Amino acid sequence: MFEEVSQGLVYETLRTYNRVPFAAYKHYNRLMRSVSFFDIPFSMTFEEFVDILKKGTRQIDRESRIKVLLSVKTAELFFVFSPLNISSVEEGVNVKISKIRRIPDLSTPPSLKITGRTDILLARREIGECYDVILTGVNGQVCEGSFSNVFLVKEGRLITPSIESGILDGITRENVIKLANRLEIPLEERFVWVWELFEADEMFLTHTSAGIVPVRRLNDHLFFEEEPGPITSTLMENFEPFVLNLEENWVGT
Amino acid sequence: MFEEVSQGLVYETLRTYNRVPFAAYKHYNRLMRSVSFFDIPFSMTFEEFVDILKKGTRQIDRESRIKVLLSVKTAELFFVFSPLNISSVEEGVNVKISKIRRIPDLSTPPSLKITGRTDILLARREIGECYDVILTGVNGQVCEGSFSNVFLVKEGRLITPSIESGILDGITRENVIKLANRLEIPLEERFVWVWELFEADEMFLTHTSAGIVPVRRLNDHLFFEEEPGPITSTLMENFEPFVLNLEENWVGT
Amino acid sequence: MFEEVSQGLVYETLRTYNRVPFAAYKHYNRLMRSVSFFDIPFSMTFEEFVDILKKGTRQIDRESRIKVLLSVKTAELFFVFSPLNISSVEEGVNVKISKIRRIPDLSTPPSLKITGRTDILLARREIGECYDVILTGVNGQVCEGSFSNVFLVKEGRLITPSIESGILDGITRENVIKLANRLEIPLEERFVWVWELFEADEMFLTHTSAGIVPVRRLNDHLFFEEEPGPITSTLMENFEPFVLNLEENWVGT
Amino acid sequence: MFEEVSQGLVYETLRTYNRVPFAAYKHYNRLMRSVSFFDIPFSMTFEEFVDILKKGTRQIDRESRIKVLLSVKTAELFFVFSPLNISSVEEGVNVKISKIRRIPDLSTPPSLKITGRTDILLARREIGECYDVILTGVNGQVCEGSFSNVFLVKEGRLITPSIESGILDGITRENVIKLANRLEIPLEERFVWVWELFEADEMFLTHTSAGIVPVRRLNDHLFFEEEPGPITSTLMENFEPFVLNLEENWVGT
Repeated sequence: MFEEVSQGLVYETLRTYNRVPFAAYKHYNRLMRSVSFFDIPFSMTFEEFVDILKKGTRQIDRESRIKVLLSVKTAELFFVFSPLNISSVEEGVNVKISKIRRIPDLSTPPSLKITGRTDILLARREIGECYDVILTGVNGQVCEGSFSNVFLVKEGRLITPSIESGILDGITRENVIKLANRLEIPLEERFVWVWELFEADEMFLTHTSAGIVPVRRLNDHLFFEEEPGPITSTLMENFEPFVLNLEENWVGT
Repeated sequence: MFEEVSQGLVYETLRTYNRVPFAAYKHYNRLMRSVSFFDIPFSMTFEEFVDILKKGTRQIDRESRIKVLLSVKTAELFFVFSPLNISSVEEGVNVKISKIRRIPDLSTPPSLKITGRTDILLARREIGECYDVILTGVNGQVCEGSFSNVFLVKEGRLITPSIESGILDGITRENVIKLANRLEIPLEERFVWVWELFEADEMFLTHTSAGIVPVRRLNDHLFFEEEPGPITSTLMENFEPFVLNLEENWVGT
Repeated sequence: MFEEVSQGLVYETLRTYNRVPFAAYKHYNRLMRSVSFFDIPFSMTFEEFVDILKKGTRQIDRESRIKVLLSVKTAELFFVFSPLNISSVEEGVNVKISKIRRIPDLSTPPSLKITGRTDILLARREIGECYDVILTGVNGQVCEGSFSNVFLVKEGRLITPSIESGILDGITRENVIKLANRLEIPLEERFVWVWELFEADEMFLTHTSAGIVPVRRLNDHLFFEEEPGPITSTLMENFEPFVLNLEENWVGT
Repeated sequence: MFEEVSQGLVYETLRTYNRVPFAAYKHYNRLMRSVSFFDIPFSMTFEEFVDILKKGTRQIDRESRIKVLLSVKTAELFFVFSPLNISSVEEGVNVKISKIRRIPDLSTPPSLKITGRTDILLARREIGECYDVILTGVNGQVCEGSFSNVFLVKEGRLITPSIESGILDGITRENVIKLANRLEIPLEERFVWVWELFEADEMFLTHTSAGIVPVRRLNDHLFFEEEPGPITSTLMENFEPFVLNLEENWVGT
């Protein structure tokens, strides 16, 4: 069996808010996109998918974390439900730049979400006391954390690597972009060169389970002593109310 | 368990000749090199390693194929023994160039032999009727097949991608290089650009289970109609006697 | 003076048809685009530009070749008029792939047309008996000849590297694309990998002075013995009538 | 004539110390190496070369700057002698990272020193109020300034990009490396990633006319307020006595 699993499992990680699966339709579509890179005899309707999510999360008496995995070799599907643990990150986290570069799109489509990616495996070994490590691309562009997306603030503008930088289109990333638009914070999605990180005024990460995570320190560079900068703070305050009320996050649930 | 396995298994694939494990010491050293990229609480002496190989192969009444796998997460070690099936390849095989590029060394050390490499996973989907596909690197250099190394012959010279091209140092590749030296065939280990394949006089692959595999056709380019070219033929004829008599292939067995 | 000139001259090369400057407006715009990469105190209206072209070509009693150069250091402008020599290329030409890679867009914008590009300088040293050499990009994509653009035909489809491949948007290239659309020949503008050249049915180059130039041989690969393939031939026959009647090529002249 | 010059001039820039041409033999050898990339009908002995240098510098009543240029098209050779102006740099200079990447070795050999390099031309447009800009390579490695080499100090170790990073082997760089060895300062020649610049304790540039130039500020990152760090200071104090007494710098003069 381990040979089959070691061939790779495409996957998605979801969470609940108020015990309802969040952004299920977006996760379903991304899973299907990952599936499309392989000839897997797999079909599951969104309704079936949501139904399993609902039944599983009901078994847990608080917020859940759900991992959905599908073997690219055997089309076996796994759902793993567990209680969601969110460590408090409001005082900010430390991150550092990994020596390992994001696998480039010529080698693997950035939108394929699959276990066993050797860049992630190796980069995570460097995390140590940090919250996450930042993977840059082979041209020195900022890509993403090993489980998060990256945002900067510079002179009042919010900046994040574009999809063309070779990153996964994180669902929290997308929600933050929509929130920034709503709040009329100027936004740049573009190639971000690694040295721009050290010139930024603010920096934060985004990922499903914790939402917006302010970065206090990047390598030797300190972003703040006491409190995250104003744009990060504004986005953090508004994030949960915004996503809870954005209809597209609740399609079908 | 699948989460642990899907983290990756470093591995080696061996075969027997005359029911004795071949090049066991070289495979052991390569396995240990793969292990060294991780903090795995694993130690096994070469003597213990060989002992298991010998006991396993004794259970099979013909030549064996042995796969050794080690979980980078749990340090669990697996040995899989199976009868060796070698399809006849003397009339030559068809190969083609994969659209997928070898993951570059900035993203993953080429010498790390691990399951779940997404480039291999994706490239193998293109094999179809072919024997193997050739992965080029992100700069267009020839790297290797998805389970083999690549050799060319041009104007009497044997040419193979250098280790610096970003390839695994195949043990059969190394044996062929030593054989070529013994036979005084001029040899070039260097960056080989992909268009050189279409100008070559002969081409062959090497891998553990089948040794030297002559390439008859690469994409639309036909190398031979009836018989492999002279240098490929010479190497094929001499390969087995040579490796069977090369002492370094039998250390400790 | 040589220090100033050696700083680089942005330039354009034009020709006349029926002694009228061809595609003058397109060349003017490209020149202005090259100028825009520098802080050159230079302004010249299109009318002034055309006026000089007309006066110069009148001095030559047959078709002219016009080189326009502008020093990026001093803004000095040079026009060089000479008789146009077109060698007959109908029987096809030989080309080969250069070892030198096109300077990538991270290092220099592909649309900057300037003297002294070291990749062109070095690649041209390899031309020898060939008509031109083909420069590939640092990822192994086909870019362009040292003074031409590249087209392939494969199974009835016309294929040419996209602008995103890192090439100059040749004016003859653009005219051929429009002609293909007019003739309803299916067209692909995309990344073309270098090995696709060796699988093509037909290949041709385009450049200002000779229009469409069929390729007979690429390295060791022969495209035709006697006559260019059908799509190349069709395009060649229709090229001159088409461009002579396309209004946009005669704006302002 | 401008067409010929615009083809490129290989060149060297020298200076005198005590009105004697410095490191003439090293510059002669580098010029000959640049010449070797072309088929230039050029031969000049080192003795002839030095003789011209000596005669030219005698005409100037203080230290000289000498530029030697050779047309790769016509083999014409130019010597330009001028008074050496050294601005005081002891209080440190500001530099920044250029958006333009060093042309990679696949496109042009880094050791070819030639006018008209488009990366340098474009990068210098960004200098503004800075002393120089730093060019990184296409993989995000630190390469060199537009006319200087780069050194860092981190935890008492001197670090400088290796030749394999794709840089010119500056003669002042080489002298500083020898001086560091003499002073037993630990030295690393290796790939230096651009973010390491922002973690360094000290940074300085080297080039022929000014020797060692301490960097005070890189982009927003301040290295020192009042005085260069201890290793930079030590190297600066010892540089001139060291190079004036190093015999290899005075061969033939």
